[in-house]
Amino acid sequence: MNHLDLSIKIAINNWQLQIIAFNSLLEKLSDQQLITEIAPAKNRGVYLLGHLTAVHDLMLPLLHFRKALYPELHSVFVEAADKTIVEIPPIIQLKEQWAAVNDTLIWHINHLPVEEWFTQHNSISEENFAKEPHRNRLNVLLSRTNHLSYHRGQLALLIKKS
Amino acid sequence: MNHLDLSIKIAINNWQLQIIAFNSLLEKLSDQQLITEIAPAKNRGVYLLGHLTAVHDLMLPLLHFRKALYPELHSVFVEAADKTIVEIPPIIQLKEQWAAVNDTLIWHINHLPVEEWFTQHNSISEENFAKEPHRNRLNVLLSRTNHLSYHRGQLALLIKKS
Repeated sequence: MNHLDLSIKIAINNWQLQIIAFNSLLEKLSDQQLITEIAPAKNRGVYLLGHLTAVHDLMLPLLHFRKALYPELHSVFVEAADKTIVEIPPIIQLKEQWAAVNDTLIWHINHLPVEEWFTQHNSISEENFAKEPHRNRLNVLLSRTNHLSYHRGQLALLIKKS
Repeated sequence: MNHLDLSIKIAINNWQLQIIAFNSLLEKLSDQQLITEIAPAKNRGVYLLGHLTAVHDLMLPLLHFRKALYPELHSVFVEAADKTIVEIPPIIQLKEQWAAVNDTLIWHINHLPVEEWFTQHNSISEENFAKEPHRNRLNVLLSRTNHLSYHRGQLALLIKKS
């Protein structure tokens, strides 16, 4: 494997490791824990789950893979802060959507030819991309991996110490 | 810039963005906030600062750059859990060490030739590296970037809502 292929493989591996770690954490949390705030007056676990599902879903069009599966999550879990909308989807549904979004994403990620990672993503103009070629699909993957880690660190606080 | 160079540039950019975001957060937190637990019965902010300083310091030998600057932090902030050691360094000293470690790291990171990112790090044998070539220095950079995001997400909980 050449170094360019290896650099993409490493980026994808790191994404998958974060997804696996998040799913492992999610399995350990009861619904009761998920409706608890991660710290006093902060987001609830269920909000973080919905937020990450909505953000990952939007990666599908951002990376030119396909249209979002559940665009209705955006207004609830990205535009609105937690506890400002009373009716949010049930946890069991969010968990299914989380799994479906990530399954769809990883399929497209694994099928994208290496050179395609260096093409522009969907929210940058051709003019700006010519000036800033690092704002490509690979950069989206890395920054979303960090975003996932950020919120996983918060969700982990709901685990009770044994 | 060719795609291989670009992939390394993107990885380094993402590291730097996380460091900048962490420093911006740190500036907003008072010493009083830093000695507060991020959530009830969880780590204090100061422990996360020490933990990240110790882990980043150990990246210096792990990436074959140089020996650690403050190896004494390892026992306090990696081996020991928070609140099990009464005497920890003062916050002002930890902040200086945090800055010194990251300044040293970024100097070496910026001077490492692109091809060198694909060589093995310091805690894998030649035999295992031959089988798993993705366990290289680039992979260390990406996984430590995620580690930093993980704890930044936790530290951000100490910010009071305005």
